[in-house]
Amino acid sequence: MSMEDLKAKIRVIPDFPKPGISFKDITTLLADGPAWAKAIDALAQQCAGLGADVVVGPEARGFIVGAALAYRLSLGFVPVRKAGKLPAECLRGDYQLEYGKDSLEIHKDAIRPGLKVLVVDDLLATGGTIEASIKMVEKLGGEVVGVAFLIELTELGGRKRLGKYQVKSLIEYPF
Amino acid sequence: MSMEDLKAKIRVIPDFPKPGISFKDITTLLADGPAWAKAIDALAQQCAGLGADVVVGPEARGFIVGAALAYRLSLGFVPVRKAGKLPAECLRGDYQLEYGKDSLEIHKDAIRPGLKVLVVDDLLATGGTIEASIKMVEKLGGEVVGVAFLIELTELGGRKRLGKYQVKSLIEYPF
Repeated sequence: MSMEDLKAKIRVIPDFPKPGISFKDITTLLADGPAWAKAIDALAQQCAGLGADVVVGPEARGFIVGAALAYRLSLGFVPVRKAGKLPAECLRGDYQLEYGKDSLEIHKDAIRPGLKVLVVDDLLATGGTIEASIKMVEKLGGEVVGVAFLIELTELGGRKRLGKYQVKSLIEYPF
Repeated sequence: MSMEDLKAKIRVIPDFPKPGISFKDITTLLADGPAWAKAIDALAQQCAGLGADVVVGPEARGFIVGAALAYRLSLGFVPVRKAGKLPAECLRGDYQLEYGKDSLEIHKDAIRPGLKVLVVDDLLATGGTIEASIKMVEKLGGEVVGVAFLIELTELGGRKRLGKYQVKSLIEYPF
């Protein structure tokens, strides 16, 4: 299965969640066994040389990609959640969403100083969610060795915003 | 790594999210690469003979276990989400949470009649969330060939409630 075949599995939905946004629906790719395997294998290949100790991913679609990628790389997975969901002591980070504003949390004891972290989400748009996750990891002393996405919207400035990091992505759309 | 070693990776937090609840925190297991690999491999071994075509899992911790298990079994993954999150036409199901009430949705075109479905979540307590997910799958014509969990709280009646299904779990606590 080629990257073009993989891209063809994504369903593009116009005007969701609001007019003017062309939503990239990954559920049609996820639901296809060979496509899901190919996506995780290809992303793992891109990330294998980064030397990560652990994968971090934000709720909720970052859980889907991050947990499977961690398994494929034989690494652990650390969830970044909406505020109030994690049961132990947390660090909180506020951030600007693409469609609003929200707070995220990570367990303080999940990232020890010097831990090499691969941050993963389904989609890179403006980079707001992922930047908030990166900042939290770094505040706890972790070293972000890479950021990886299934999809990158190349015209929205996310890669530039994440300029100092190694950015990996599988499938590109302009916006 | 034995099942007892795996169980030792889970952090039990008393009185979360409210007094009297002993919360099973899987994040400490997830964060450990060998434990996460062992958990997914062992659950896959239990589920390999069920003949599933696809894995279904509810937001948000069901995404973590379900997406990785689907990858391990070379199957696709279909998310069940909180209402309003999925972009295409949905079936909605209301359900009683352990700590409240909520609505879930699944894409109508994700389950075709006769599709054999493995429903996965992190934890079986009273079985409310998973029962709602099962009902939605069945309304769409899917056949639930099994339900699988990392953790089962054996004294809360979930397995009895799911009596007509094949229930698989890795790690048991009474409650």
